[in-house]
Amino acid sequence: MPIKEKFITLIHSLQNTICQAIEKCDGKAFFKTDEWNRPEGGGGITKVIGEGNVFEKGGVNTSVVYGDVTDNMRKQLKIEGHTWFACGISSVIHPLNPFVPTVHFNYRYFELYNEDGSIADAWFGGGTDLTPYYLFYEDVKNFHLAYKKCCDDFDTDFYPLFKKNCDDYFVNKHRNNERRGVGGIFYDYQRASPEKVAGDWLKFASDCGHAFLNAYLPIVDKRKNLPFTESQKYWQEIRRGRYVEFNLVHDRGTLFGLHTNGRTESILMSLPPTVRFDYDYQPKKNSEEEEIQEVFLNPKNWIDEISKEEKNAWAQKTNTC
Amino acid sequence: MPIKEKFITLIHSLQNTICQAIEKCDGKAFFKTDEWNRPEGGGGITKVIGEGNVFEKGGVNTSVVYGDVTDNMRKQLKIEGHTWFACGISSVIHPLNPFVPTVHFNYRYFELYNEDGSIADAWFGGGTDLTPYYLFYEDVKNFHLAYKKCCDDFDTDFYPLFKKNCDDYFVNKHRNNERRGVGGIFYDYQRASPEKVAGDWLKFASDCGHAFLNAYLPIVDKRKNLPFTESQKYWQEIRRGRYVEFNLVHDRGTLFGLHTNGRTESILMSLPPTVRFDYDYQPKKNSEEEEIQEVFLNPKNWIDEISKEEKNAWAQKTNTC
Repeated sequence: MPIKEKFITLIHSLQNTICQAIEKCDGKAFFKTDEWNRPEGGGGITKVIGEGNVFEKGGVNTSVVYGDVTDNMRKQLKIEGHTWFACGISSVIHPLNPFVPTVHFNYRYFELYNEDGSIADAWFGGGTDLTPYYLFYEDVKNFHLAYKKCCDDFDTDFYPLFKKNCDDYFVNKHRNNERRGVGGIFYDYQRASPEKVAGDWLKFASDCGHAFLNAYLPIVDKRKNLPFTESQKYWQEIRRGRYVEFNLVHDRGTLFGLHTNGRTESILMSLPPTVRFDYDYQPKKNSEEEEIQEVFLNPKNWIDEISKEEKNAWAQKTNTC
Repeated sequence: MPIKEKFITLIHSLQNTICQAIEKCDGKAFFKTDEWNRPEGGGGITKVIGEGNVFEKGGVNTSVVYGDVTDNMRKQLKIEGHTWFACGISSVIHPLNPFVPTVHFNYRYFELYNEDGSIADAWFGGGTDLTPYYLFYEDVKNFHLAYKKCCDDFDTDFYPLFKKNCDDYFVNKHRNNERRGVGGIFYDYQRASPEKVAGDWLKFASDCGHAFLNAYLPIVDKRKNLPFTESQKYWQEIRRGRYVEFNLVHDRGTLFGLHTNGRTESILMSLPPTVRFDYDYQPKKNSEEEEIQEVFLNPKNWIDEISKEEKNAWAQKTNTC
């Protein structure tokens, strides 16, 4: 079976598995499915959930699309080729409770063809990143550990590399390089090689994709019933504003989709349900909000470089609950 | 006095005049002033208002900035030159009441210099556009009439041209070319000529700038006390989402500012205070919300091409109040 067929099978299976697990965790809401066709070729399955016990808005989308390489793509993506194919799974989940982080993941495969139909180029990309509104050190550490394990099983050089990629990618450059969250892993333009054949990259996407269940959902279960105040919800909505800014101003995937006649509703499913944009909002001095903002400005090595003093300081502060 | 000095005087005077008029209309809130310097040259005065009786969030900003032409600017703006100068006034006002439209205006002047300091190129730009959430035909017509008068006093060819520019500019291309509002006027890259010298363009910016007082504030006064429901507020927040999408994905001014180390808080003052992003939100059939959405998809010639039938249909529908 060609690798693209295997990747398509993977994303559809992953979509079903993850949607079931999210529904179980929520206990009230169910995913709604929209299947759509792209006029220029291909289509997708959009699954969205909302107004749940736990999840205020979320989506798990797959798409399998193809077409001619347009001038727009040549300019925007700096690619050469005659036709192209792309498939991927993409998800963003926005919980109601500000103590539960937002999460995003995306795994994709891209092929470019010559005029005679032969493959000119092909690459894998993907990643998962976490966007908490309050800092629970153990949550962030466990999240990173889960993806470090996926990486280490494949190549021990990868976690530090993909972790840094992630910190460098999900950045609001227009806000002093503030990150949108606490990172995770991110990789792109990974081509098959004799050491790492296409099947290896497929398995890596599969491992990372399935790791979501153990990396994210246990955090949700642990925090979803914590009581929260109006001002904590306010802070979540302010931070969601930064999520919007990143996705609409910087995210290559979003902009590529919007500028190539992608299905807008599926692409913008990633935007949070309720958002606030205040002029020059500043968290209070020495507050938990200020503390996590510091972390967004200065990414940490969550697994092994946090000092005891920092851990203790955080542990004392996260006493809201 | 060089034209750039005159333009600077105009924008500062306009900023004060308009802020005073807005405060008077609000009756509760006052503008807060932030003066800022741009490390690479120049600075600005940001005036913001919020949590008023009438205005939920708004800003009237001026800036006078200059610097070297960077590679980034050459690429993004397709300009050639050694150094540049820009000054302008820019405003977005988001009212609380969904029956009061959001308004935006911007008037600016740009100079490019050769290496020896001589002027290589210079142009004027600007415009004003209205974004209502509910359609009151007379409000939109009067708004357009005010700017048509400014145009006609200058050149009777301009209103149709600048009206079309506006309809063509404030467009969410990724949403079937839905406009963000009901338009107004927009012009850019207008250079002085023997027929229309720089002083004429200065006067045009001044006339259009001052027209705000008679074009917008009377609408606010007429609608600000209308009672509204939660679902009408909900619709306003959905439409504000489209405002965010336009400003962050398409607006050249916003993207130029964010990508050239502009002052982020001043640039993003334009974003609405509270916003909703629902998946695939659709207004109810034959509702007032659907009616105005139709207008956003199919811009009208407000002054002379509305049929009696359309006017009657709208008049019957805007019976919410």
